[in-house]
Amino acid sequence: MFQIFITILILMLSQTPDSPAERPDFVLVIHGGAGTIKKELMTPELEAEYRAGLQAALDAGKAVLEAGGSAEDAVEAAILPLEDNPLFNAGKGAVFTHEKTVELDASFMSGKTGEAGAISGVKTVKHPIRAARKVMEESVHVMLTGTGAEAFAQVQGLEMVENSYFYTERREKQLDRILAREAEAHETELDDPNEPVRKKHGTVGAVALDKYGNLAAGTSTGGMTNKRYGRVGDSPIIGAGTYADNATCAVSCTGHGEYYIRNVVAFDVSARMKYQGSSLQTASDQIIHEVLKEQGGTGGLIAVDKDGHIAMPFNTSGMFRGYVKSTGEQNIGIYQ
Amino acid sequence: MFQIFITILILMLSQTPDSPAERPDFVLVIHGGAGTIKKELMTPELEAEYRAGLQAALDAGKAVLEAGGSAEDAVEAAILPLEDNPLFNAGKGAVFTHEKTVELDASFMSGKTGEAGAISGVKTVKHPIRAARKVMEESVHVMLTGTGAEAFAQVQGLEMVENSYFYTERREKQLDRILAREAEAHETELDDPNEPVRKKHGTVGAVALDKYGNLAAGTSTGGMTNKRYGRVGDSPIIGAGTYADNATCAVSCTGHGEYYIRNVVAFDVSARMKYQGSSLQTASDQIIHEVLKEQGGTGGLIAVDKDGHIAMPFNTSGMFRGYVKSTGEQNIGIYQ
Repeated sequence: MFQIFITILILMLSQTPDSPAERPDFVLVIHGGAGTIKKELMTPELEAEYRAGLQAALDAGKAVLEAGGSAEDAVEAAILPLEDNPLFNAGKGAVFTHEKTVELDASFMSGKTGEAGAISGVKTVKHPIRAARKVMEESVHVMLTGTGAEAFAQVQGLEMVENSYFYTERREKQLDRILAREAEAHETELDDPNEPVRKKHGTVGAVALDKYGNLAAGTSTGGMTNKRYGRVGDSPIIGAGTYADNATCAVSCTGHGEYYIRNVVAFDVSARMKYQGSSLQTASDQIIHEVLKEQGGTGGLIAVDKDGHIAMPFNTSGMFRGYVKSTGEQNIGIYQ
Repeated sequence: MFQIFITILILMLSQTPDSPAERPDFVLVIHGGAGTIKKELMTPELEAEYRAGLQAALDAGKAVLEAGGSAEDAVEAAILPLEDNPLFNAGKGAVFTHEKTVELDASFMSGKTGEAGAISGVKTVKHPIRAARKVMEESVHVMLTGTGAEAFAQVQGLEMVENSYFYTERREKQLDRILAREAEAHETELDDPNEPVRKKHGTVGAVALDKYGNLAAGTSTGGMTNKRYGRVGDSPIIGAGTYADNATCAVSCTGHGEYYIRNVVAFDVSARMKYQGSSLQTASDQIIHEVLKEQGGTGGLIAVDKDGHIAMPFNTSGMFRGYVKSTGEQNIGIYQ
């Protein structure tokens, strides 16, 4: 009897009419990775640089949406400055692999068309997010990898660079310290204690809702410091790191990629909304704070739903994040 | 009022107690790809060869399960002979890329542990399904790609071969005919009209339920004939081509990979069961016959749920498939 009552209640709640009038004209949410962010090692200057980087991304995406541009264009516009910023682990500033090269992954999905594109393991594409979008728009495929993906990007006229373009002294020192500790500890993938941002799942991403009600999501990353064996994380995996569906939401993840792949995190947010009638916040929180946390899977995600609600849960001590709405509301956050 | 009645009905149905007594001790389901299977080009001899290949796979997996082996071992045992059989597009007999090489993908997932492994774009691993399982069991990663994945396989002591091992005259002729037609038509990825099995989404896969109630799934493929740019399909993507969860089901897909990635097909079967209370058959049918069909996404899937029910839907004219249960029930099918 009690169950029937609850069910009726759920039915009534789920029948609450949508309020499109309340939907903001546009919404943009971005992230620059989640991890253990050590305040004691974070100088005010460095924090200001991170904030400025996030602000630049928000501004770029907002300009597109304000001008009536598409969610896809806004996602790309927001991610480009993050890829160009050496502070974030994507594009310029990407972390080093075990072999001291840089290998980049990215993915893109349109909630309007259900089309998607992804590239993995590319070493010479200056803006991986652009390549992922090109795969979506200009190829019959969804995922291209390695030198094949690079050849495709070149055919598409994207800007190509030497792998050394991605080199930064900071990332090299980071790898060197990790390799030195690895040699001592006989363990792989140790963390770097001298970084203010530790155990960082360095990834950047953006999700957007445009004035036409269309959603889009994109994610770009350099992957894991000291990664080897051609390791691919969740960022280029549609369903794991990135997902968008106009019927539900757009999601971009940042976390310990293996957990995100196994739990198909980005799609699961959408599935819980679609099949269970969960709100975006509930669906996102359950995955980040319950499913992943129980498994030891650290990270977070950003999401926007079709009605303009946003969610930015993370189970680490910090996540570089920000959002802006057409209402003028905006915020940038780093810590809990 | 009617909705309330329906809801009560659903509640009552969903409360029907499980019948573990009826669960078979073990179940194994396999597939060897779906596509347009032209009866007029299929000789009785060739059909017999296909059936014998499927039977060998069923026998190998059944032997493991009968002896009290694990679902993981059964899945691997069933896929190995399919990888060794030149009739199926996986391992020996894999199709050629545009560059006349062979690039193999595979994935593996344990429903018991939630662990998963995948490799993509490998050219020298004789049994890709073994490599995928090794990634799951012996690495901290889920997905390895290209030469990195090959280096890992070698470290793990797996059998390595020259890329030429995978060469078959049939696949070379298939590519040559397609390239010739491509040159005429200025189109890519044309189909080969001289093959009895056309538009074949050549993949092999297996799912199993063992006597301990554990599920596992695996998929292995040579991908798409004439594929280029390092194209990766759904087979090595956890959630798209392969998924397993002891709480719901184990799934292996075969189809036009891009549609399977965008629709996160394997995980969606599980999500519909978990969140909507759908049966395995309903969930699988909805995805293959409704979601994919509406988009023009051809293919099929095989699945077994935690209670031993199986589903093998496909929206093409044929799918090489078979199953065996501990009850002695078994069947092999090719056409509708």
